[in-house]
Amino acid sequence: MFDLDQEIKGAKRIGIAGHIRPDGDCVGSCLGLGLYLRENYPELEAVDIHLESVPEKFRVLEGTETICTSYPEKTYDVFFSLDCGDIGRLGNAAEYLKTAGKVICVDHHISNHGFGDVQFIEPAASSTSELIYLLLDDAELSVSAAKALYMGIAHDTGVFQYSCTGRRTMEIAGKLMEKGFDFNELLDQTFFQKTYLQNQILGRALLESMLLMDGKCIISALRKKDLDFYGVTSEDLDGIVSQLRNTTGVEVAIFLYETAIQEFKVSLRSNGRVDVSRVASYFGGGGHVRAAGCTMQGSVYDVLNNLTLHIEKQLKGADL
Amino acid sequence: MFDLDQEIKGAKRIGIAGHIRPDGDCVGSCLGLGLYLRENYPELEAVDIHLESVPEKFRVLEGTETICTSYPEKTYDVFFSLDCGDIGRLGNAAEYLKTAGKVICVDHHISNHGFGDVQFIEPAASSTSELIYLLLDDAELSVSAAKALYMGIAHDTGVFQYSCTGRRTMEIAGKLMEKGFDFNELLDQTFFQKTYLQNQILGRALLESMLLMDGKCIISALRKKDLDFYGVTSEDLDGIVSQLRNTTGVEVAIFLYETAIQEFKVSLRSNGRVDVSRVASYFGGGGHVRAAGCTMQGSVYDVLNNLTLHIEKQLKGADL
Ligand SMILES: [Mn+2]
Ligand SMILES: [Mn+2]
Repeated sequence: MFDLDQEIKGAKRIGIAGHIRPDGDCVGSCLGLGLYLRENYPELEAVDIHLESVPEKFRVLEGTETICTSYPEKTYDVFFSLDCGDIGRLGNAAEYLKTAGKVICVDHHISNHGFGDVQFIEPAASSTSELIYLLLDDAELSVSAAKALYMGIAHDTGVFQYSCTGRRTMEIAGKLMEKGFDFNELLDQTFFQKTYLQNQILGRALLESMLLMDGKCIISALRKKDLDFYGVTSEDLDGIVSQLRNTTGVEVAIFLYETAIQEFKVSLRSNGRVDVSRVASYFGGGGHVRAAGCTMQGSVYDVLNNLTLHIEKQLKGADL
Repeated sequence: MFDLDQEIKGAKRIGIAGHIRPDGDCVGSCLGLGLYLRENYPELEAVDIHLESVPEKFRVLEGTETICTSYPEKTYDVFFSLDCGDIGRLGNAAEYLKTAGKVICVDHHISNHGFGDVQFIEPAASSTSELIYLLLDDAELSVSAAKALYMGIAHDTGVFQYSCTGRRTMEIAGKLMEKGFDFNELLDQTFFQKTYLQNQILGRALLESMLLMDGKCIISALRKKDLDFYGVTSEDLDGIVSQLRNTTGVEVAIFLYETAIQEFKVSLRSNGRVDVSRVASYFGGGGHVRAAGCTMQGSVYDVLNNLTLHIEKQLKGADL
């Protein structure tokens, strides 16, 4: 860890950016750090936050209106890259790295090999927001900044449920909550809430799901015409495969949706016994043991047949 | 708070019981305390845990096999009543109070007026499991006991999302997690997991839901024939109304299911602007501002008409 005061000493213009297609941790860490710097370093001439976009649901956070969603030519004395595993993930903001006086990289992605002049990369951390908290003085942290960091931590931990959550994560979240904001409402608004259409399509996926292999595998497939009927996009399908995987007795969940004629996007989830990254790799995709994906051609029956064959093999092997 | 060592000094036989229809906090607090006493007080002749039943999903906790689901005649030197707002909630275990040398009541229900010889009642606490933790010596707490208490806290806080979660809750949960167990799997198994049929019926309820009042109210109704078709019970319907309420823009969710010809169980949820307990009370039910319920007679259209009339009135009043 480094000393924030030291690192930004003498700087006048500070830039902050996160990864393209910003998620909760990305928005939360950028906004949390940005607000903190603006509130505690009056000598700074500019603290600019650049993000590709700010998804509507995150707009409930104070300060999101100051986030710049364009990338005008600017030179920063210090530039923070947050929550980006590599420079490419910065999108257009990568340009700022070329002219910045100093680049500080704060991240928790295991794939991050390190870039920039100063690095604070901790793969075991739950989130970049957790790491940002460690750089700040809690006594000087405003409610708005605390709220942003809390949201970031909550999103990357699935609200404190994923294994990346540690004792330190819980303690930091507790301190942030104590600043006094309606965290229950914030979680509803940014994490749990679904649109009516998202719930409709989830309902369809659940109703049409089927159990295979003595209930160890669950499958569900959505056709393009149904997606078009409800007018939903791929983002609206987030979470469906996880919900399927959380079915009692299920070891592997397969969720597919048609993207074009005879073409399917496939999401795979496992509880750990089956390595779904091996299945996805076989079909040209990738991922991790518990979560992987690929794109496959053919009829829905071909696709499912091919996938289940590989899963069944692993399940049988695991049973030996 | 009291001193556990002091309170059980000289005791040989200890009884522990929670409320009827035990939930996660009830099972977690009883088991956590029971295991801790057995592990750290070898001089005790018996540490009996009595619960009406142990729902299958909680059986993943070590020690649940030692929980006694009957109530043989016994006399205890010290008897713990956990997570019970009043004596009636103890069910058959209430008999033990009459002969016990000392009764200790640990609870967090705001409705608890206090009973027993020693009381540790803190309505602001997230859970009884959180209070039990405060009575124990962390250094002597086993992984199995920690797991039980963690589960209790997680269940009563909806996995750290409800407003009852405080900084202390987060810190205690963090310490418990650090004991070293797969909390992610535990949460999946006991909290998030749904059966295939529960997902089917959720799918039906979501698909058949409708938005009213410019999207401020969402309704969904399930018929008895559908419940019978899927073979689901009322417990399988838990959580549906909350998921409906978490729809973007929705202020009030109404979920009904048919229990007999022309008879419906009604669940109401609100984000706080509408007081659904007032609506439920009008129809002979009750509850809180954000969660209430009642039983209503008539056709599904009559029932919905009557309910929405009252909700619309409040929404209009709130808009004035
Ligand atoms: Mn992140
Ligand atoms: Mn409780």
